Amino acid sequence: MSNNTKLAEILTEVRKRVPLTHSITNYVTINDCANILLSYGASPAMCEACDEVYDFAKISSALYINLGTLTKEQEQSVVLAALSAKKHNVPVVLDPVACGAIPRKMKVLGKIVEIGKIDVIKGNIGEIKFLAGVDSCTRGVDSLDSGEGALEACKAVAKKYNCVVAATGVEDYITDGTRSAVIENGTDMFTKITGAGCMTGALCAGAAGACEDRFMSTVSALLAMSVAGEEAAKLSRLPGSFRVNLIDSIYTLTEEKLLKEGKVEWI
Amino acid sequence: MSNNTKLAEILTEVRKRVPLTHSITNYVTINDCANILLSYGASPAMCEACDEVYDFAKISSALYINLGTLTKEQEQSVVLAALSAKKHNVPVVLDPVACGAIPRKMKVLGKIVEIGKIDVIKGNIGEIKFLAGVDSCTRGVDSLDSGEGALEACKAVAKKYNCVVAATGVEDYITDGTRSAVIENGTDMFTKITGAGCMTGALCAGAAGACEDRFMSTVSALLAMSVAGEEAAKLSRLPGSFRVNLIDSIYTLTEEKLLKEGKVEWI
Amino acid sequence: MSNNTKLAEILTEVRKRVPLTHSITNYVTINDCANILLSYGASPAMCEACDEVYDFAKISSALYINLGTLTKEQEQSVVLAALSAKKHNVPVVLDPVACGAIPRKMKVLGKIVEIGKIDVIKGNIGEIKFLAGVDSCTRGVDSLDSGEGALEACKAVAKKYNCVVAATGVEDYITDGTRSAVIENGTDMFTKITGAGCMTGALCAGAAGACEDRFMSTVSALLAMSVAGEEAAKLSRLPGSFRVNLIDSIYTLTEEKLLKEGKVEWI
Repeated sequence: MSNNTKLAEILTEVRKRVPLTHSITNYVTINDCANILLSYGASPAMCEACDEVYDFAKISSALYINLGTLTKEQEQSVVLAALSAKKHNVPVVLDPVACGAIPRKMKVLGKIVEIGKIDVIKGNIGEIKFLAGVDSCTRGVDSLDSGEGALEACKAVAKKYNCVVAATGVEDYITDGTRSAVIENGTDMFTKITGAGCMTGALCAGAAGACEDRFMSTVSALLAMSVAGEEAAKLSRLPGSFRVNLIDSIYTLTEEKLLKEGKVEWI
Repeated sequence: MSNNTKLAEILTEVRKRVPLTHSITNYVTINDCANILLSYGASPAMCEACDEVYDFAKISSALYINLGTLTKEQEQSVVLAALSAKKHNVPVVLDPVACGAIPRKMKVLGKIVEIGKIDVIKGNIGEIKFLAGVDSCTRGVDSLDSGEGALEACKAVAKKYNCVVAATGVEDYITDGTRSAVIENGTDMFTKITGAGCMTGALCAGAAGACEDRFMSTVSALLAMSVAGEEAAKLSRLPGSFRVNLIDSIYTLTEEKLLKEGKVEWI
Repeated sequence: MSNNTKLAEILTEVRKRVPLTHSITNYVTINDCANILLSYGASPAMCEACDEVYDFAKISSALYINLGTLTKEQEQSVVLAALSAKKHNVPVVLDPVACGAIPRKMKVLGKIVEIGKIDVIKGNIGEIKFLAGVDSCTRGVDSLDSGEGALEACKAVAKKYNCVVAATGVEDYITDGTRSAVIENGTDMFTKITGAGCMTGALCAGAAGACEDRFMSTVSALLAMSVAGEEAAKLSRLPGSFRVNLIDSIYTLTEEKLLKEGKVEWI
């Protein structure tokens, strides 16, 4: 089976298995993440109370941790959930939102690594470069960085944290340290709405819950988001309408469309 | 007046009285709940800080408690608000989200019953069966249960908690232990978006704030949601667009449409 | 340059400078605030954790504080952020949501004034009248007040807190105590959705981050919201669709449209 065929099949696997995707995420885009997971075919569960997450992570297919609006309670919850995921062999996808701009995010990330585990890190290029110790350019939670050096940064982070790493931007870069891919699909409309990055991270968790190969599941999720985004942007280049269309486009995405529209370069 | 006419009139009562609907609900769909209450004709107030809820419940027409993403602070708030509602005779609608999957939810529900009160429980069929002590099938926060035995479960829960009970699914079941109703309207699109259940619960609270008969107000709110959902699904079977249409359809709902489209069986 | 030309140019300044708009706001409409800031041209950052806000306010162009669903943690955060804004000369826009209905809001507002600072207060007419010590009519978080006496109330609050004050309603009133303006644009559809007030406050912060004249920046932000709202209401008078159109209309707003459609009376 070709790599591209495998990517398309992961979409079908998500819809067949309906992975329970335990998400602890920021309050800005929590609704968007739940809705896009449903449209993707996964079963979202935004369980975040520190008295609940350990047991809930046990019964989940994947855990999504997003460090956006991290309340004090969530700070405990993400570590407990990651510990549970480690013990019960549940894949963990981490979105290190604003890790370069806000030092506390790195402390929490460190605790997650120390006490729990991370299988996939999905950030924007600025965040991934920061994790790699490379200079980057950010404004608040946004990356203003070009893609130059992005793949090298991904590889450095993959080595450092021993996990799959994805950096999103005009092009998306994914690596597990050995295998790498670049996705050329996407749209600048992602920068006109809040939550494109968070939704992408949530999809990575959904895909990881349906496929053991974390590198391929991550490439497949990013490709789904990018191809759906392109279609949504064809329907409207206004941000309010684009958001509505994006959820619809993920819902109507097919293996055929992924294969036909997908522009993935394997390195 | 026939029962069906009464259901339609409750919609008009909501719009006339604009009941202040105090809601303590999860952060995933809090915006959806506020918007659908506004479209329904009620006045939502998402007041949830533990220093505020006791006094705010006093001045409200109804209290909606949703156990979804229950932070530590919300855990205190729901009990305090329910206590205030008991003392000040404000109807309480409870949505026991994930009560079967997450043991903590039952502890909080127990405290609400012990210290405060519950007038209406609105859950999906899986949740209601769990409360009834009957085997059911759930995945995360979703019910995978058929409607078989649902009415019996509702009756058992109505007896146990001495309140009106509604179980939503392909068909909706409502009982106060004596009077019962089954609603055959609805759409499978409710399962493609997050928050259909939460929004239904919020509407139940809005209706309870405008009508003293908790059984009839609950049937009326569920019927409004189901009929509006059917209309929204006729306009679009894509989840992003469906969500937008749902808010619009609740807003344009009329007594006439409820009477014409409603399929309620009184038992 | 005429005042009206200045208003239009502030819109362009926002888009040129992309002000980092640090927002601590309620969970009901946090997503709407982020999306409308993006559509306006600003860069929203919903940073609210009490361990993060002091440092984040430092690097921001403006701080938006909304007292809606004020958790215990947010209560600390808003004061810390306002203190940082004071020390680092960052403009602060305050939205005193429900200050008349919920006494705790006034305690928090008092702490913000004592420890930090406020540059702009943006409320509905009921809230501003309450702050002025004038009788007003509210229901929950909504103002039921007419505009009578609104400008006088604004002036009293401007004097009391030594800041720019804006009161929104059928007409919007803005004053810095000396200069005043009335905006006659707007739409009743703002009352059919949740978050119109919050979004307006967020835009005031975005504009304050791009223009030193707080009075003019506030008038410009309110005018942008009102003119975009009118356009969105022309496209749809149904609340679900209106919300989508509102984000689109802010995005497509131009200097020309502001100048042509704007109905500002300078007093």
